[in-house]
Amino acid sequence: MITLASDFGSPYPAVMKGVILSRTDAQLVDVSHSLPRQDPRAGAFWLRETLPYFPPAIHLAVVDPGVGTDRRALVVRIGDHALVGPDNGLLRPVARQLADQQTDRQSDDPPVAAFEITVGEPDSTTFHGRDVFAPAAAAVHDADLDRLADLGLLSPIALDDCLDLTFPEPTVDDETITGEVLVVDEFGNVITNIPGEQIADATRATVNGRSTPVVDTFGSVAPDERLLTVGSHGYVECDVNHGRGDQEFGLAAGELVRLVVER
Amino acid sequence: MITLASDFGSPYPAVMKGVILSRTDAQLVDVSHSLPRQDPRAGAFWLRETLPYFPPAIHLAVVDPGVGTDRRALVVRIGDHALVGPDNGLLRPVARQLADQQTDRQSDDPPVAAFEITVGEPDSTTFHGRDVFAPAAAAVHDADLDRLADLGLLSPIALDDCLDLTFPEPTVDDETITGEVLVVDEFGNVITNIPGEQIADATRATVNGRSTPVVDTFGSVAPDERLLTVGSHGYVECDVNHGRGDQEFGLAAGELVRLVVER
Amino acid sequence: MITLASDFGSPYPAVMKGVILSRTDAQLVDVSHSLPRQDPRAGAFWLRETLPYFPPAIHLAVVDPGVGTDRRALVVRIGDHALVGPDNGLLRPVARQLADQQTDRQSDDPPVAAFEITVGEPDSTTFHGRDVFAPAAAAVHDADLDRLADLGLLSPIALDDCLDLTFPEPTVDDETITGEVLVVDEFGNVITNIPGEQIADATRATVNGRSTPVVDTFGSVAPDERLLTVGSHGYVECDVNHGRGDQEFGLAAGELVRLVVER
Repeated sequence: MITLASDFGSPYPAVMKGVILSRTDAQLVDVSHSLPRQDPRAGAFWLRETLPYFPPAIHLAVVDPGVGTDRRALVVRIGDHALVGPDNGLLRPVARQLADQQTDRQSDDPPVAAFEITVGEPDSTTFHGRDVFAPAAAAVHDADLDRLADLGLLSPIALDDCLDLTFPEPTVDDETITGEVLVVDEFGNVITNIPGEQIADATRATVNGRSTPVVDTFGSVAPDERLLTVGSHGYVECDVNHGRGDQEFGLAAGELVRLVVER
Repeated sequence: MITLASDFGSPYPAVMKGVILSRTDAQLVDVSHSLPRQDPRAGAFWLRETLPYFPPAIHLAVVDPGVGTDRRALVVRIGDHALVGPDNGLLRPVARQLADQQTDRQSDDPPVAAFEITVGEPDSTTFHGRDVFAPAAAAVHDADLDRLADLGLLSPIALDDCLDLTFPEPTVDDETITGEVLVVDEFGNVITNIPGEQIADATRATVNGRSTPVVDTFGSVAPDERLLTVGSHGYVECDVNHGRGDQEFGLAAGELVRLVVER
Repeated sequence: MITLASDFGSPYPAVMKGVILSRTDAQLVDVSHSLPRQDPRAGAFWLRETLPYFPPAIHLAVVDPGVGTDRRALVVRIGDHALVGPDNGLLRPVARQLADQQTDRQSDDPPVAAFEITVGEPDSTTFHGRDVFAPAAAAVHDADLDRLADLGLLSPIALDDCLDLTFPEPTVDDETITGEVLVVDEFGNVITNIPGEQIADATRATVNGRSTPVVDTFGSVAPDERLLTVGSHGYVECDVNHGRGDQEFGLAAGELVRLVVER
């Protein structure tokens, strides 16, 4: 199985599918091709929140503003999973999550290995999804990574030398939790980095000074009303029932969120 | 085969796919993940218009504004098909359509059965697609419903006790047919509940007082011009060639449409 | 394998998938269902740029403003590939590309044949994707074209009698290259018909009088700045880093682009 994720929209992902299916008969599963454009941090968040639900697979992921520069192209093995994508931090958070998940399940750390993709000159400077990553994903699907390294298609590197990307942690000062917007989803739901436990027993909290009900379900407030809830990923979300949280709260990715639980 | 339909956009449906593929190797087919948001009636319409074209399959469908409340989670068997989704009416119109279709083909009513999904506490109050419906669809794909009931994963209920949802019927008063907009598709085509036969032989009709040509094809009128036609689902549509019918006619879902055929 | 491309958006393509899967168990791969609406020329461009990357397959493609008129429905065989769609020019450019590709690989022209789909009366005048093309694609997947012709489902015709559609060639007058916008992609990138070689060694060029840097990668200019680059399809593109080229350059499909390389 090869999963595909990118910020390519349509129809460019079809080219990657064609390249892969020309080389191997893998089952293809689309994760998303509308990841936030040229935003590896947001992409890294969504990969971390989605790929761990899959069975062992090759995961092709491309959000790559540095395409055409000398950033490396990577294959990262985490136990039974392999990640294929650019060396810009995109793959690191999901790699950690997959490693933690497998450690939890097997009470043993999974084998981890990183490789640079060392193919010849790609045909284009702008579409390495087609010219570099899709052929690599097909090769990884069909052959052992060590075998590909022996063939000179991959070159072993240290995962620690790959660009990392971490999500900021909220700070707690007295009763104020200062967090940050990680991403806004396509419905305008504002996903913060504040763990859901922070509002576990609350019924209201202020968000940047505005008092807002804390609820379990959108339907607990009237249409168009603001709400705080714990999203499916476990973080505090600033949402609006039948509306857009980003507009109503005036919040965008990277912006500060000051949360005070009302007692 | 498991088909997937939701109002989840992207990338949330990938999580459901991962959950399913972690449990079974079913063929997955996306029906749509851009069903109108939190609108079970519109979702029910689109399910009824699409799922009957599929071969026997498990159909996972989630448009679920009541997620996190005590609305039940359902599996409905209609002959060779099984529907998995919330008990909010979403599944009832397509269930009727599938039953009628199989009755027509076999001149015998198909076996119908309904079950409540009785899993433990879901991990989230907001993402039962991941926590309840996807695992149930995988289980239904792999095991007989009666066997799942024996295992305590499903609990038999009466389909008649499930929330129903019907589409309004138009009324005819003298020469005026008074119908309603069922849904507006993403191109702005206004789909009414008025059967196509009502304009079968007409060449013009007034829609809420505006005279409009009745045509077989969009190309029969000039670009940007209004038209009435019978859509692929058999209903009268208020459309615009190369434009948006909803804007030009000033019509939205649920609004009244008064149609008078001009003789 | 059957690939699917259309301008149908969602959820209409699911109906075509259901019709196909009711008749054959082909692997389905979505190319795009957001091809520019009712624009066979743009559709022809995208088909030509995507389908040649696929292994031998049946390619179902529907961008069909003439649906319901007497335009013919076609199956075109190009060696191991078969194209299924309307006779409006949509299939001709990709047919040429597939023929050239196979000629290059085998130093021999592939067998080419065209057929009209001669099914009975379709159920609708507006959804031949469901009523004509999807059933034909399933039939072509399962049976030889000559066999389908013997059965009376296809009728041999001359490919040269099918409507053609070609892309304009740029003209060069002194130092001015006068081209045209072929398509604008969904991110606003303006794809012209000017071959990339025309700016191969340039560092700047004027586009309709505005001096613009020529770069290999978007990241070579600051966010929101204009740039010229050679896209993955080999043509000159007028783009904006992190922005929309169509808005910044004021260009739409079909409009003139006057390019002068600055020496």
